[in-house]
Amino acid sequence: MKISLGPKTLLYPTPVLVVGTYDAKGKPNVMTASWGGICCSQPPCVNISLRQATYSHQNIVDRKAFTLSIPSDGQVRHADYFGLASGRDTDKFTASGLTPVRSELVDAPYVSEFPLILECRLVHTAELGLHTQFIGEVMDVKIDESSLNPEGKVDICKIKPLLFAPDTREYYGVGEFIAKAFSVGKEG
Amino acid sequence: MKISLGPKTLLYPTPVLVVGTYDAKGKPNVMTASWGGICCSQPPCVNISLRQATYSHQNIVDRKAFTLSIPSDGQVRHADYFGLASGRDTDKFTASGLTPVRSELVDAPYVSEFPLILECRLVHTAELGLHTQFIGEVMDVKIDESSLNPEGKVDICKIKPLLFAPDTREYYGVGEFIAKAFSVGKEG
Repeated sequence: MKISLGPKTLLYPTPVLVVGTYDAKGKPNVMTASWGGICCSQPPCVNISLRQATYSHQNIVDRKAFTLSIPSDGQVRHADYFGLASGRDTDKFTASGLTPVRSELVDAPYVSEFPLILECRLVHTAELGLHTQFIGEVMDVKIDESSLNPEGKVDICKIKPLLFAPDTREYYGVGEFIAKAFSVGKEG
Repeated sequence: MKISLGPKTLLYPTPVLVVGTYDAKGKPNVMTASWGGICCSQPPCVNISLRQATYSHQNIVDRKAFTLSIPSDGQVRHADYFGLASGRDTDKFTASGLTPVRSELVDAPYVSEFPLILECRLVHTAELGLHTQFIGEVMDVKIDESSLNPEGKVDICKIKPLLFAPDTREYYGVGEFIAKAFSVGKEG
């Protein structure tokens, strides 16, 4: 028997995405967001939603670019810190000791120490209410070579991305392999 | 040192979302999609991207509504099957033995046996290329009472949602608790 929780943002899992931008003075900034994901295969696009009040929001509007840096679970303190502090009054890269790298493809920086990077140019903006959704075309994906499996594919068990659980506001890691997709369902 | 993988849809983790719709004759249909997530807190909105070729795409355009049913990892065969078969020539509910429930709030059905349900009315559509992104306002969330923790919050360890790993096309489960969000980053 199901019970009603009302209209809420409860969807599992959500990712932990660190959005990289430059401000008007060229200072690199990062903020963490979990309202985002993949939204188109061709051209490859991702979406990220930010509140208009955030420093990063204006940076994306101005620069028409952002990166997504995906932290490993061992980098959770950095990821959480990037969601707590504001670039308006803090240089989060300096405070964290992490390294901003200027993208050669889009006008935005990414986090050198995080294992997976998406470099995105802004292609679509939707004002949805408290959040603005930015859609970026992925111009390149960069990865630590050590996060690939022997076949050259991205190994989620090596990236060890974080999951965010909205209602309890907790981070989890990736668990066990369950099944091959586009395969296990054929068995009926 | 990072290496370049080119412009690809590689973001981790992505969710496993079963999209429920009615077709023109009122037949309930379900399909599985991983290009989606939460995109606005107020009003609460979620996004899901479908190829125009899918049967569900037309259903959402016509009915202006969809549901998201989130399966547990033990229901992976059903979830994968829903992504392999097409509602054009198959009654996936009958074939799977699962039960469609008519939403009382939106013109779409959901999967009774899955632990977490979002009932959504279409509020925004974006043509991005191969995929169309549909944004739905969440009118209600329904959950198995057994998936709540003692404080009445959604317990991700009881829902046990699937994660989809794009490059290797694999499903994973939820792993260990890592840290409290909006907290662990304060420790510096």
